[in-house]
Amino acid sequence: MSRAYNFSPGPAMLPEPVLRQAQATLLEYGEVGASILEISHRGADFLAVARQAEADLRTLLTIPDDYAVLFTAGGATTVQALLPLNFAAPGQPCDYVISGHWGKTALKQAAPYVEARIAASSEAGGFRDLPPREQWQLSPDAAYVHVTANETIHGVEWRHIPDAGAVPLVADFSSSIASEPLDVSRFGLIYAGAQKNLGPVGITVVIVRRDLLERAGQPRAPILDYRAIAAAESMLNTPPSWNWYVLGLTVQWMLEQGGVAEFARRNARKAALLYDAIDGSGGFYRNEVAPAARSRMNVPFFLHDPALDALFLSEAKQAGLIGLKGHRVLGGMRASLYNAMPEAGVQALVEFMRQFQATHG
Amino acid sequence: MSRAYNFSPGPAMLPEPVLRQAQATLLEYGEVGASILEISHRGADFLAVARQAEADLRTLLTIPDDYAVLFTAGGATTVQALLPLNFAAPGQPCDYVISGHWGKTALKQAAPYVEARIAASSEAGGFRDLPPREQWQLSPDAAYVHVTANETIHGVEWRHIPDAGAVPLVADFSSSIASEPLDVSRFGLIYAGAQKNLGPVGITVVIVRRDLLERAGQPRAPILDYRAIAAAESMLNTPPSWNWYVLGLTVQWMLEQGGVAEFARRNARKAALLYDAIDGSGGFYRNEVAPAARSRMNVPFFLHDPALDALFLSEAKQAGLIGLKGHRVLGGMRASLYNAMPEAGVQALVEFMRQFQATHG
Repeated sequence: MSRAYNFSPGPAMLPEPVLRQAQATLLEYGEVGASILEISHRGADFLAVARQAEADLRTLLTIPDDYAVLFTAGGATTVQALLPLNFAAPGQPCDYVISGHWGKTALKQAAPYVEARIAASSEAGGFRDLPPREQWQLSPDAAYVHVTANETIHGVEWRHIPDAGAVPLVADFSSSIASEPLDVSRFGLIYAGAQKNLGPVGITVVIVRRDLLERAGQPRAPILDYRAIAAAESMLNTPPSWNWYVLGLTVQWMLEQGGVAEFARRNARKAALLYDAIDGSGGFYRNEVAPAARSRMNVPFFLHDPALDALFLSEAKQAGLIGLKGHRVLGGMRASLYNAMPEAGVQALVEFMRQFQATHG
Repeated sequence: MSRAYNFSPGPAMLPEPVLRQAQATLLEYGEVGASILEISHRGADFLAVARQAEADLRTLLTIPDDYAVLFTAGGATTVQALLPLNFAAPGQPCDYVISGHWGKTALKQAAPYVEARIAASSEAGGFRDLPPREQWQLSPDAAYVHVTANETIHGVEWRHIPDAGAVPLVADFSSSIASEPLDVSRFGLIYAGAQKNLGPVGITVVIVRRDLLERAGQPRAPILDYRAIAAAESMLNTPPSWNWYVLGLTVQWMLEQGGVAEFARRNARKAALLYDAIDGSGGFYRNEVAPAARSRMNVPFFLHDPALDALFLSEAKQAGLIGLKGHRVLGGMRASLYNAMPEAGVQALVEFMRQFQATHG
């Protein structure tokens, strides 16, 4: 088949111009005489790529100068393990606001090192809504408060990040970074695996207020030390350089398309299209998330009859729509609508859903 | 320029057929309708890629069944940090045999967690030789003995790994894995960043005897736990899937070329060509490593007059020979002769060196 509309939650659809540029340079990058996969990360050619990617990301996200930007390996889950090691004393309280599966994961990674407290959780309601700010039980002595900006599996999203007071707010933005304008200065640290809205799998972005890098943290190897990583421009050891390059191409593409303000408009239209189709299906399709908490990025939905799930997926694939199978935690379907997904893709999905309902409803 | 002979120490030259295959699939992988960069690591298409890569690596390296193979992110340096966390009790002795820069790095990563002991070191002699086995001071209660099979910067290599007795031997094979046949059963654990002999940057291989995974180790996050990673087939979180795919292509290429026995023959010829040229240059070029300890993979060498270094590098580049600048720790030149470097590349280098000497000697 030719390229489909790919609703995969991550690794996820990349913009075709980015893939074409990566493809064109895969054997020879510029006048280097080699692929960018094959050259030293400490040479001038790659350093230029790396620094341009950081500069472009700073422009795209309006990152203030008092924030460092790290490019790391190991994914968002590794960041979750390194947060307590870098920013909390042994046994110090760290507050976790749990709005879905990934918030629980973040807490689990921190638990061996600190007193990881559940400040609030919407698990009792099946993560169909966000824990209201007035119910958060914050610890005044916490090292940080952790939130998951967008829950990729449960499809709930904080559209307005609540105030956490004087304690630094740390946020997992893996599946919603760069999807709309964001006031970075409200956060102590933002992190995101790149394989959703920032392009390729295999690299992760950490945006951290520089004063937090001065915290003592806990005994840890130098390679797990964010202060050392920042000082070494994320090249304490060989970074995933090719992935970094493709991230840079993706950021450039987002800037060319009009930046986060433009993607906010597109993403609002895309999400409205799909939620309207679900809500207007008379119960054939349903999304169970409270409307104010619905994610613009990941839309889980269920068919009224789960016996139709396999048929839905196979007919969708025939229609050029892939990556729609829901996560095993929830079952059902999920459509991920990251920046690289064009509106035409969501229109095609909605049209397919109408036809499928007409045939099987 | 067209593709040069690339002597970079890593990221390093890849086989052109591997790059061409990766290029051909960068927009559409098989009948998937998407790039392999864009599809779920938990879907059948990528799982097949991942499992085939492991099966082929097991064939290539003759890995016994009682060893697990992990594919990790974060490079060899991260493995060095996780070794004590996974395999040693807090404060337990761990023995390090230091034969160059990377042995020192390994010790530095472990030091926050254990009593990292220098069992032997050749640093006093500038790492121009290996620490003789009879001088190793091993701790009977050590969790493991760590050696660096090949020192990428200093160009010294253990051709016959000494016996470490009952304590498991852990070896960094980043720059010499798959360069010749190896008896894996002599080791407790072998690890290697892929960006030298196994292909792409951004993924690391850990081969570990399964009984060692039962050790309690030290408190650590689940994502830093090798037992959990092994149980999850290296997919506890999103792995660097594209990098894994290219590693698999590189392993397939090595099998097609005749496997490690064939590469051992080629590598012996390549190294002899270059060392003979250096030794036969009447002192115009010199390599300072004791002949029995010389690396087949990384050949550092010096011009008799360092004032010629810049000219050597620029004329080499014009001759289609790149990546020859020595590491800042040593200066001078270094030629890395990994499996993907053809004999014709080393012949071209040697011929260039003769001409350069004739002109500037």
